[in-house]
Amino acid sequence: MSTPQVVVAMDWGGTWTRTAVIDRQGEILWQAREPNPQNGTKEEYLSNAEKLLSNAIQQAGGPVAGIGAAVAGPVEPTTGTFFQPPNLMVLDGISFKALWEEAFQVPVWVGNDANLAALGEHYFGAGKESADKGHPVKTLFYVTVSTGVGGGVVDKGSVFLGANGLTAEIGHTMVDTTVDALQCQCGARGCLEAIASGTGIERIAKQKLASGGFPDSALAALDAGLVDSEAVCDAAEKKDSLALSILEGAVSALAVGLTNVVHLFNPDMIVLGGGVTDGLVKLDLLPEIDRQIRDRAMSELHKEFQLTSARLGDSVGLAGAAALVWDQLGVER
Amino acid sequence: MSTPQVVVAMDWGGTWTRTAVIDRQGEILWQAREPNPQNGTKEEYLSNAEKLLSNAIQQAGGPVAGIGAAVAGPVEPTTGTFFQPPNLMVLDGISFKALWEEAFQVPVWVGNDANLAALGEHYFGAGKESADKGHPVKTLFYVTVSTGVGGGVVDKGSVFLGANGLTAEIGHTMVDTTVDALQCQCGARGCLEAIASGTGIERIAKQKLASGGFPDSALAALDAGLVDSEAVCDAAEKKDSLALSILEGAVSALAVGLTNVVHLFNPDMIVLGGGVTDGLVKLDLLPEIDRQIRDRAMSELHKEFQLTSARLGDSVGLAGAAALVWDQLGVER
Repeated sequence: MSTPQVVVAMDWGGTWTRTAVIDRQGEILWQAREPNPQNGTKEEYLSNAEKLLSNAIQQAGGPVAGIGAAVAGPVEPTTGTFFQPPNLMVLDGISFKALWEEAFQVPVWVGNDANLAALGEHYFGAGKESADKGHPVKTLFYVTVSTGVGGGVVDKGSVFLGANGLTAEIGHTMVDTTVDALQCQCGARGCLEAIASGTGIERIAKQKLASGGFPDSALAALDAGLVDSEAVCDAAEKKDSLALSILEGAVSALAVGLTNVVHLFNPDMIVLGGGVTDGLVKLDLLPEIDRQIRDRAMSELHKEFQLTSARLGDSVGLAGAAALVWDQLGVER
Repeated sequence: MSTPQVVVAMDWGGTWTRTAVIDRQGEILWQAREPNPQNGTKEEYLSNAEKLLSNAIQQAGGPVAGIGAAVAGPVEPTTGTFFQPPNLMVLDGISFKALWEEAFQVPVWVGNDANLAALGEHYFGAGKESADKGHPVKTLFYVTVSTGVGGGVVDKGSVFLGANGLTAEIGHTMVDTTVDALQCQCGARGCLEAIASGTGIERIAKQKLASGGFPDSALAALDAGLVDSEAVCDAAEKKDSLALSILEGAVSALAVGLTNVVHLFNPDMIVLGGGVTDGLVKLDLLPEIDRQIRDRAMSELHKEFQLTSARLGDSVGLAGAAALVWDQLGVER
């Protein structure tokens, strides 16, 4: 019997769980989005997830090749066991793979959402676009610059997992070694996430405003509750100098982190996604990140990368979960 | 016909070329070392190398499974083509693989020496020791702290090559972002190599001494020509405070670079080799590097690594070249 032509994909985030039916080309044939139970019990989370998957399988209208799930937290790569997910601690130690293979009698694979976003962009996003133009990507480094800063690496078409599946944590690489480096929520100082994430940008803006030194900034006119990374990007679009200097710091920090990545992974493609990236794209700041990396790159061969923005938007987790199933099944796309 | 039981390995360094006959267990059955031609022509280098390989094949006394070569410079992974090797520019664009497969009629593989040192330690050094104790290594990050600082990554038993084979260049990751960060010979500022390499330590010591601020240091009593990283390590052994503070800086810089590596590659083993590492081992400074990394690591799973010193000493390049052949031939060791 030939392999079925569709998979069911799930993207289990902090707030929403999305499910979809996706074909080999990454086309989303059907999708749905449901809010997660709030502070639910383990049983509530699990029965909700099974209900969503059941529904998706029904929507597929025929056999599915497998289920792929992207989850927000560390996952043991072979068993698909959740490990102390910060937002879903009641699910610590659960193997979705074992549960759902039993429940649905199809192969199941589970991965960390940032890793799978990398895989999604590789097979169905920026990587595919490059391949279609005759430049197949060997090593893709994906960074999400959003509430936090995370990442994923795809090498020769598969996620690079390291020993425990916790690779590409560029958000917690050190990009500021000065004595007054900002403290990150991970406890260390000078992490990229503390400077370039949405949370980091918001915190820096609030601190600068609280210092009282920027009365002319458009941000100073806002209610403190409205000062967030989006407001900073909006003000920067209007050439607000405080906002511009905060984003300049984020751009430099990203460039330091990515230069390290270039020297360590030697990628031929870097893809930036996430909400803060959207803001940087609007302000046309990606070329400046690119320039700063190239300026520091140690050799011409290390400069053989493309830096680009993500193509898949909100669907990147679903696309990556689908790509994981096709990849594991060894199916040619 | 079954695969022959030995390979010929070559380690082509800046000063010496070593050749050896090595079995599947990594045992060196025969070896030789010859000085390289000085400022030779392309033809001189190549005929010298062929002569050494011929001799090694003869010493094998029977069929060899293949030839593996570790070379000091960037190598294109599939064709084995040298790319602008800083110390051997006349060999730019040469494919040893093509040349030697033609000349010797056995399969040939070529790799960068730091990458292959990682492979050697994985299969025949620290990685093997761990596997023999029941802890097979999944992801090994090797760092050579020597005249320069380089590295290699082995994941699931194979070298992680990235797009162009230029991965694990930890020496050129940024570990000092302060305004007075030292300039590296690569042109950038704040590289690990500028602080922790033998050359870096020597330069820092000479600058400190030239400032005249350390008349009591044992290093100040030395002829300037004798102040090098070894002298700094020797003085540190005698508790010289200048020497100790320079090495403290090197230790911190290594810890920053390796924390970034831990977050990006999630290795379960870090192996430090090279002459400067030998000095740090004598001073029992590896536990301090280990402590600083663990102090900053973002999660318990990221702390599941062993940090250890290299086992193979000068033979690491030969061992890695042999491991490359066995790995590529798919031979179980």
